[in-house]
Order: sequence, then structure tokens, then C-alpha cells
Amino acid sequence: MAGGCNVSFDLIEEIIHPRSIAVVGATLARGFGGGGFVESLLEFDFKGGLYPINPKHSEIMGLAAYPSLKEIPEPVDYVISCVPAVAVPALLEDAANKGVKTVHLFTARLSETGRPEAVDLEQSILKLAQGHGIRLIGPNCMGIYYPLWGMAFHADFPKESGAAGLVCQSGMISREIIQGSAQRGVYFSKCFSYGNAVDLNESDFLEYLAHDRDTRVIMMYIEGVRQGRKFFDTLKRAAALKPVVILKGGMAEAGARATASHTASLAGSYQTWKAMVDQAGAVSADSLEELIDLAASFYFLPPVKGRRVGVIGGTGGSSVLAADKCEQAGLEVIPFPPEFREKLKTQGVSVWDWLSNPVDSSIREDDSFSIGLLLEMMAQDSHFDLLITMTGMGRFGAEPGVAYEDYLKQQYRLDACKDKPFLTVVPDRSPGIKDLNNRTSKVTAEVRTALINLKIPFYPTIARAAFAAAKMIGYYRRLEPDD
Amino acid sequence: MAGGCNVSFDLIEEIIHPRSIAVVGATLARGFGGGGFVESLLEFDFKGGLYPINPKHSEIMGLAAYPSLKEIPEPVDYVISCVPAVAVPALLEDAANKGVKTVHLFTARLSETGRPEAVDLEQSILKLAQGHGIRLIGPNCMGIYYPLWGMAFHADFPKESGAAGLVCQSGMISREIIQGSAQRGVYFSKCFSYGNAVDLNESDFLEYLAHDRDTRVIMMYIEGVRQGRKFFDTLKRAAALKPVVILKGGMAEAGARATASHTASLAGSYQTWKAMVDQAGAVSADSLEELIDLAASFYFLPPVKGRRVGVIGGTGGSSVLAADKCEQAGLEVIPFPPEFREKLKTQGVSVWDWLSNPVDSSIREDDSFSIGLLLEMMAQDSHFDLLITMTGMGRFGAEPGVAYEDYLKQQYRLDACKDKPFLTVVPDRSPGIKDLNNRTSKVTAEVRTALINLKIPFYPTIARAAFAAAKMIGYYRRLEPDD
Repeated sequence: MAGGCNVSFDLIEEIIHPRSIAVVGATLARGFGGGGFVESLLEFDFKGGLYPINPKHSEIMGLAAYPSLKEIPEPVDYVISCVPAVAVPALLEDAANKGVKTVHLFTARLSETGRPEAVDLEQSILKLAQGHGIRLIGPNCMGIYYPLWGMAFHADFPKESGAAGLVCQSGMISREIIQGSAQRGVYFSKCFSYGNAVDLNESDFLEYLAHDRDTRVIMMYIEGVRQGRKFFDTLKRAAALKPVVILKGGMAEAGARATASHTASLAGSYQTWKAMVDQAGAVSADSLEELIDLAASFYFLPPVKGRRVGVIGGTGGSSVLAADKCEQAGLEVIPFPPEFREKLKTQGVSVWDWLSNPVDSSIREDDSFSIGLLLEMMAQDSHFDLLITMTGMGRFGAEPGVAYEDYLKQQYRLDACKDKPFLTVVPDRSPGIKDLNNRTSKVTAEVRTALINLKIPFYPTIARAAFAAAKMIGYYRRLEPDD
Repeated sequence: MAGGCNVSFDLIEEIIHPRSIAVVGATLARGFGGGGFVESLLEFDFKGGLYPINPKHSEIMGLAAYPSLKEIPEPVDYVISCVPAVAVPALLEDAANKGVKTVHLFTARLSETGRPEAVDLEQSILKLAQGHGIRLIGPNCMGIYYPLWGMAFHADFPKESGAAGLVCQSGMISREIIQGSAQRGVYFSKCFSYGNAVDLNESDFLEYLAHDRDTRVIMMYIEGVRQGRKFFDTLKRAAALKPVVILKGGMAEAGARATASHTASLAGSYQTWKAMVDQAGAVSADSLEELIDLAASFYFLPPVKGRRVGVIGGTGGSSVLAADKCEQAGLEVIPFPPEFREKLKTQGVSVWDWLSNPVDSSIREDDSFSIGLLLEMMAQDSHFDLLITMTGMGRFGAEPGVAYEDYLKQQYRLDACKDKPFLTVVPDRSPGIKDLNNRTSKVTAEVRTALINLKIPFYPTIARAAFAAAKMIGYYRRLEPDD
């Protein structure tokens, strides 16, 4: 959005561009807590002022440390609070005096404990902040990952920026999403881990990402919604602008119990939730894995507008199973149209009468067809809406000196296929320590990297590819119901 | 079985213990086809006579090669046919003259092509064999993997023997199953890849494995059943003796089409199939991944007889999602019983009132509880029927010099847990080439290897662990419906 007329957008835009950050309760320990935040901001080369606060140290990781906020010689825009919950009210007073705009409360053990005194403390923290005009992120969360601005909450997060945005109630889940997505080639513009959401909540961050020009796809993990109607309206606006994929935690009875003790959220029923997401035009994920599958799909693929799939690359049994899974997902594994078969014949494919969709690539009489030829023909045939290729056990072998990218480009004739949605299946191998570096593991890893560079999404199983494609189709159908 | 009274058992027992094997159509090329079989038998150190047959060569991989069967100076029990389909009738005449008992037809392009002349040829091959008293495996298949007898059809298969048996209609799927299972610690007694099943079929091999003392768990991949009633009866007998897990290919319309061109089988409807498997007391798998999950579960776990699960090891959001998936699978994530909570309190766990099942392992106020303590308490509490632990992103760190096995034993207090079914979740990481050897990949691979050595099954996602457990419970309930 051009900005200006949207309160949430302008507010969040200001919050995520602090000129300086103080980490209150910083420690010498890297990896987690106060020390972890300092380490991450240093690792991401945050350009503004960076001030660790700890009365016990004069220096932390090479930075001057201060006993409290007021000793910092420069203005502070953004505070990361790593102090115990009982110390937060005093910190907010200090922050107000210092002119701080935002406090991110990594601080936890508040309403999520279910203990009445903690619930009360959380409310009084909110009131204090509101009285001083300070906005709160959290409590009980990891805050902001915005690699382009040098903000991160784990030192080992990707430095690369990308076009996915994330709104995530859970800190550890945000880590799994960010790292798991990167393994699939999906990188992030801005991510928000927002925990108990006592002040800023899911709708604020979603609204921001909806209008953020750096974000093409929005991912969400939510345990409980603070303001139902506002969230629905925001989601509907967001989903009309770009794909929004959402995973809801706390669907089951025990999940709801866990939710309460995790982020103090009230979980609703599964059916109600799914109906709401559908109606808003967004896409529900059923698991963390599917959330990432869907993000990778929307991230890399052009709109998939029909269900007719061409499947190729499996041998025998795996093409049989591929067809089963595609149909189970609601795709149509159409038989070869007569004119397609005729073309196979005129192209000199000797097994033109024996091949079918899915193409069993082990069917061979001679060299008269290749996977590349079939893919090219399917890509250029309007009967096929999308293509899925399967890479099985060690079926790859680039010649020494040939980059895997070039090998795949030629093998799959990717230049000829580039306008058709193209998904590929690259199995996970669960290697033990002996197998970590065997040929299969290495080739598989090379193929994954090459596919990411070629901007082709990959999925560990045919089922996951097929279900992701089917949900994508659902999204585009809802956008343009008359198509 | 003690043998003697079972035709299939004795027949297959004889077939899989040949004193000598001839590979007809052997080539110099390793990896596939005739050369691949010679390579594999050498690699597995087959103890009997091994005779490559190829009129163009006098030596293949260091073995004397012969122009045809009749030139072989010794008797031949078992022939692997790698000649073109049209050459099979002549080969069968030679085999009959030589006193061969079994011919495994790797030879393909028969009825699976759908071509009438190929269908006719397959039938005449069968009649010829029957006339000579020769039994056929195949055509269009990989044959036998029996590591203890030195028989294998891929040189890179595991040399280790184990207690899983496999009956698999597809050659490539058998490879994926054998290698994929080994990654999970499941090794094989005997495997049969049997293709078009013109003579020996799924029921014969299943009957054999049911009575085979080396086999504790049976895995099957079937596209079409040759004799429905016989199969049902055999399956029922087998499932009463040991767990049988079955994946059916060709469930969907297009899958059925692919099935016909793969192994010339007629696929039936999904519902009918599932009902039949249930009624026989066997376990249906819905995908290749689930087939392996189920095999690993039956292979390593004691009978799981109730649905009440204790879940531990996830932090925040992942414990919320774990609860959702367990309930979706039909497990009961029971709240802590009052006496259990009381015990937590008396054990000095400061967060005794805040913890719940699933246990969010990031809840911490002090060091008064560990995952090991909770696991031990759950293992020894009769309210819990099974336990699932989750290993997340890099949450492991054995000290240098400490073996991962020892580390896990201590971390999970495995000695105290050993009588309770214990499943663990170790995520797949889909690493690209840069990440193949990062710390997370290495630690994950070490943990997998250690778990296999400890005989604890692992699953890549909580959903897969939960659904496998639920299907196991179903199997044991059907065995003892009055429990």
C-alpha cells in the first residue's frame, strides 16, 4: 500500500524500523534469552544503536553494556524485555522516561500460566503501557525477524530476504517455519512472533503484511484469535490481495488445553474455524508441513486454475501410487487425449500406445522418448493444467562437471515448461549417520538446491504435492468463482 | 511352521534355497538388468554356483560365462531370465532339459503392455513351464532378496538380515521399501518382487512368510489380486499369526489405469479393499510412507493396547499441534490424573500446577523437572498406554565423547521406560547441499542411528507417529476384541 490511510500499516511500519534497540536483561550467553537477542542483532548487522542492559556487566559481546535504560546516551526506539515478569512495570516507567515507542516482551510466565496473579500482572502491564503510549509485542514471544533491517531473534536464521511474511503466535513454531521454509527455498520479508498478544495482535500484523509491498505470500500460525470479527475482516481483505495460508493450533480438546497453557488463547472448534477461513478466501493448512508446502507452492508457482494434472517420472508402482494420491487430493489424472497420443506416434515414440498418464518412465523399448519430451508435450498441451514430476531413488546422475541446474534444465526441458505450473517430488531420506553422505543423500541434496535456484517447488511425497496443488486451485477458484 | 503339511511353504522354501543360479542374458553392465543380477549375487557372496549366460562373453565380472544353459557343467536350480520376451519359450526348453526348478522372469513387455500378442505370449510361457514342471516368478519383476542366502537384486541393498518379510508386486517399489525401511532400522528376512504373477502369486509368498520363523512382520504392496478368495483366506491366517501391513496401488481411476499397464492387474474399489483387509485382521496402509511407519511400529514396539497417550518433548506450539494430531488419529491425550499431579508436586516439580499433557517442555521456572523424570513417571503410571516424545530443531547436544545412545538413554531414562510402547518424532529436514552437513543434519542423523540401536521407532512427524500408533491399536483390538 502507498501508506497514509491505514492505521495498522503505518504503526507497524514505524515499529519495525527502529533506529536503536535496547536489550534489557542481556546476558553473556549466546543462543537464547537476552544474550541470544544481542547475538542475533549483531549477527544480522543491525545498523542502528544497539544497547545491552545489565547492571552486572560493562561489556557484552563487544558492545558497551548499561546498568539501565536511562544511562544510554542516545535515544532508544525499541526495547526487548528479557527481565522477569515482576520487573516489567518498572521497566515500562524507565522506557516511558526514555521516549521508547515499542516494548517487545520476551518476558513470559504471565497469563499463559493460568495463575490468577500472573493474569492480573499482565493486565496491569498493558494499562501501564497504554498510559505511556507504548506499544507492546507479546508477552511470551520472540518478536521480529526482518532480515533487511538487521532484526532477528536467532543468529542462525537465513540472512537472505524473501517475499513470504509470517504472523506466528509461537516462538518455537516460528523458528521451525522460518528454517523449514528456507530448506524449501522460501525466504522472508518480515516475521512476527507475537505470543499472548496483550496489545498488538494477529490482525495488526496481518493487516500490515497484506499491504506490505515486500510480501507476496502470508503464512500464519494462530492458537487463538483476540478479536474475531476484526480478524475475519482483515483476513478477507488480505486474502483478496495475496494468498494467506493459516495453520490453527489447539483444534482438539487436548490441543485446546495445551493452547491455554501456551499462549493463554481460547481455541474454537475445528469446523467453525475452517468454514471461517474458507469464507474469508484464505487457505487452511492441516499441519506445519502442509503450511510450508502451501507457502512454497504459492511462492513459486503461477496460478493453478484447473485440476487436470500430468504426472511423470515415477516408475511402475510409484506412478500407480501417484495416480491414487492425485485423485485422492481431487486432481484429475486425465487419460492422454487422442490428439496427444497421435502426436506421440508422429514424434516416433515407439510405445505411444502403451504409455498413459501417469507416465511410467520405466516403460522402454528404445530411446524414442524421454521424460523431457513428454514434459514438453504436456506443458504445451492445453489439456494439462499442471505437471508433477517425481524423482525417485538415485534416478539422477549429472555428468561430472555439469551443474545440477543445467542438468535438470535439460532433463526436464524446463525452458519449454516454464509457463505451466510445475511441481516436483524429492523424497526425504531420514538418513542415519552412516548414510548422511552416501551418494543418494548427496544427489538428493544437490537436486533440492538446484530446484530452488530454478524456482521450482519440491515436496517430499506425491501426496503432499497433490494436496498442496489442490488447495492452491481452491484458492484461485474462490478468487474468480466464475472461471 | 514346522513344515511338512503346507504346500506353499515347502515349495517356496525349496525355491529360495537354490544350490546354483544361472543369469541368462547377463551383461557386463553393473547396476541394472542381467549384469545387475550378477553384480548383486557376487556382492552378497552367494555361496552356490553362479553362472552368467551370454554367447558374446567368456567371462563376466570374473566369472566364467557360458553361451547357453546346456554348456554349464553343473546342475542349475534357479534361472534368472533377462532375455527378451520372445526368447523365453526357447529358454524354458533349455531349462527343462537342464532340470531347472524355478525360472524368475525379469523379462517384461508381456501382458502389462496391454498388447494382445504379448498377453498370448505370456499365457503360452505359462503353459510351457507347467508342462515341464517349472515354477515361474514374474514376469516383469525383480525376484528374491534373501540376504542370509546371498540372494539380492540390487548390490546396494542392506547385507543385514532382519525380521520383516516383503511381498511386493513392483520392483522399484520393493527397492524403495527395502531401502526406506532400513533407514528406519527395519531389515528383512525374505522379500519377493513378483510382478505379473502368471504362476506363483501374492498368496503363495504371503503363506510362506506367515509360517516363516525368521519373519515377525509382513509388508505387502499389491496392485491386483490373482485369486481373491484364496488371498482373503491366506491373509486372515497370516494376520492371526503376525502383523501384516498392506498397501494397495491402483485405488483410483487413473491408478487403476496405471496398474493395468504396470503389472496387468485389475484393481478393485478402495472401500471394498479396505473392508476386506479389516475383516481379515490385517492393517491397511494409505501410502508408501505409512507402510514403512507401520512396519517400524510393529517391528520395534510391544503390543499397544490402549489409546491413552502421554506426549512430551515439544515446546509450546509443537505440543499444541501434537495434541491436535493425536486426537485426529483417535488417540486420547488424557489430562494428568489427579494422583499423577499430586506426585509431580511431591517430587518437587515447581510447575506441577502449570504442566499438562502434552507436556510443553519449554515451561521452566527452575531445574525441578526434566523430560526424563516426566517420561519415567508416565511410563510407570498405568493411566498411560503409550508415550510419544518429540525431538525438535537442534534440541539435542551430547557432550563431546558421549555416545548418542548413552546420551538418549539417560536423557529419556529409557531403562525405566522399556515396558511401555515408546515412539519418537525426529523430523526430516530436506537439506540442500549447503545444509547436508550442518550441525542440525548431523545431530539428527546421529539421533536416528542411536534410536535404531536402542530399538525405538522414529517418525518424521507427530501425525505419522500418531496414525501409526492408532492403526497398531486397531490391529491388537481385532486380535483380542474382548480386551
